[in-house]
Amino acid sequence: MSRTELNQLGEFALIEHLTHEIVIHNDETLLGIGDDAAIIENTSACTLVSTDLLIEGIHFDLMYHPLKHLGYKAVIVNLSDIIAMNAIPKQITVSIAVSNRFSIEALEELYKGIKLACDTYKIDLIGGDTSSSHKGLIISITAIGVQQKEKIVKRSGAKIGDYIYVSGDLGGAYLGLQLLEREKKIYIENPGVQPKLDENRGIIEKFLKPEIRKDIITMLDHAKIIPTSMIDISDGLSSDLIHICRQSNVGASIEEANVPIDQEAQLMALEFHLDPITCALSGGEDYELLFTISPSDHEKIKQLPSFYYIGEIVSPESGVKLKTSKGNLHEITAQGWKHFN
Amino acid sequence: MSRTELNQLGEFALIEHLTHEIVIHNDETLLGIGDDAAIIENTSACTLVSTDLLIEGIHFDLMYHPLKHLGYKAVIVNLSDIIAMNAIPKQITVSIAVSNRFSIEALEELYKGIKLACDTYKIDLIGGDTSSSHKGLIISITAIGVQQKEKIVKRSGAKIGDYIYVSGDLGGAYLGLQLLEREKKIYIENPGVQPKLDENRGIIEKFLKPEIRKDIITMLDHAKIIPTSMIDISDGLSSDLIHICRQSNVGASIEEANVPIDQEAQLMALEFHLDPITCALSGGEDYELLFTISPSDHEKIKQLPSFYYIGEIVSPESGVKLKTSKGNLHEITAQGWKHFN
Repeated sequence: MSRTELNQLGEFALIEHLTHEIVIHNDETLLGIGDDAAIIENTSACTLVSTDLLIEGIHFDLMYHPLKHLGYKAVIVNLSDIIAMNAIPKQITVSIAVSNRFSIEALEELYKGIKLACDTYKIDLIGGDTSSSHKGLIISITAIGVQQKEKIVKRSGAKIGDYIYVSGDLGGAYLGLQLLEREKKIYIENPGVQPKLDENRGIIEKFLKPEIRKDIITMLDHAKIIPTSMIDISDGLSSDLIHICRQSNVGASIEEANVPIDQEAQLMALEFHLDPITCALSGGEDYELLFTISPSDHEKIKQLPSFYYIGEIVSPESGVKLKTSKGNLHEITAQGWKHFN
Repeated sequence: MSRTELNQLGEFALIEHLTHEIVIHNDETLLGIGDDAAIIENTSACTLVSTDLLIEGIHFDLMYHPLKHLGYKAVIVNLSDIIAMNAIPKQITVSIAVSNRFSIEALEELYKGIKLACDTYKIDLIGGDTSSSHKGLIISITAIGVQQKEKIVKRSGAKIGDYIYVSGDLGGAYLGLQLLEREKKIYIENPGVQPKLDENRGIIEKFLKPEIRKDIITMLDHAKIIPTSMIDISDGLSSDLIHICRQSNVGASIEEANVPIDQEAQLMALEFHLDPITCALSGGEDYELLFTISPSDHEKIKQLPSFYYIGEIVSPESGVKLKTSKGNLHEITAQGWKHFN
């Protein structure tokens, strides 16, 4: 593969080069890249904004994260925050800073992934910034979405008696990461050994190339269900449930037997001598949705596929608890990613 | 001064610590920090979005850029892009990544500057992200503004015959930077020597703590003038005029004698053996506005203070030219910041 150095293009030419194939999908996007600011016309609804900063070596490892997948995932992670408000993501801005270790071709790969996510979910790339860095790759994305005010769902609306649901299997991304880390270690020690990853495509893909659950938002909308609270599972079910409980000033009781665990993850957990339920509770990065609904919506939701009832919202004094299959009660504690530790 | 290490707080606690004094100024901001996304209600106007990534050692030097000033400037640079669309900035998100070289107290200083800019210009800090970095300080800001569709001004609307204006003196920020760089060099060679900066507070402040020209937007609005095109002078008058000409498919003719040069900058240029007009044309970072108006608005604008007429929009074939005081014509070329060179 050929290698073109970054300094062969200026800053403006580089942006132009990376974004010239961008297509605008949404009528609300009146102006995209190329002016001082982009213009969005959401005159019949609210605008939602979320932002994330991803740093090489902190949030991702290029040794096993192909650049195209990374571009895709960086977009997904941000769109997921808009989805978690029960809103429809519509636009993103993407800023990157790169050291001269990266070639133009490497950045083209990154942007291929960004474009793929945009095309898959009809998202407009409307702005950004490109700069050099002293070390590694830095990606900053802001996602923008739209929703009618009365349909927006915050973390703070859960009420005692509400049912708690998740949108899919948990633990996959976490065990995908564990597997990649193990194979990386083996590869570093014995560069001749090819990593064995084929049998575990599911969990590896869940980690490297997650998707947003836009289908869930659409399904709930069609069923006329507005969750009382919602969050996307990025830090882990435990951490994210605690976020909802704290901001809603309630407690929660979760049934261990009801927590949906990814089958492949379950087998891999045993291989790693890890407890599958712990992986599902604390793993994170699955980008499934965790939400609560009013008991009055229970009949409606039972008609729908792909929702997992895992427990109930209880009084704040009862705390956030896991009821094991044997009937024991354990307090759930947050064990999300802590970047500063 | 005491020093508290970053790892004494977790990520969520750090965000909480840095942002707990944040006040919401605008009714359109329905929800700020603390959920998956912020909520903005701009239902009678368009939403404008602009973003910037600032990297230590590339965009700023902490040796002479105090953290409070840096926080202030980082916000201003982004708000200025919204102003340049003839729009009113209303919200920002701020993401930072820092190495463990920085203490909590250092970040508090940075956020003091961010808050000061927000309070001065009635901006709501509605979201962000905090992470560790391997090296130095990284700041990513997204600015969001509002304006009625028919009042938004792009770069692309300049017409042949339009008058070209700037909103204030140029060259100050550039010479402020030159002076700081010189004194830094002297200080590194002789750490005992105190830098002499008092006499040149004006240009140093112009570089370290610029302001947005929100007053200009208000003034134009009151006078019922909508510029045909506009840009903020961040790369330098030459570069930014070329942006307007390219995107409007026109040429421009600028009178050297009419380009307003900062008085302090003029004296300092001579001390540095630099040509003052070159500094004013290519300096950049003054964050004044460069705009064009239709000849039919000329009578109205003549009534207003603080606008400088510098030339006219001409046919694209005539190119972008500077007419010197002696009557010679020079082609204007872009000499903005090129981070990759």
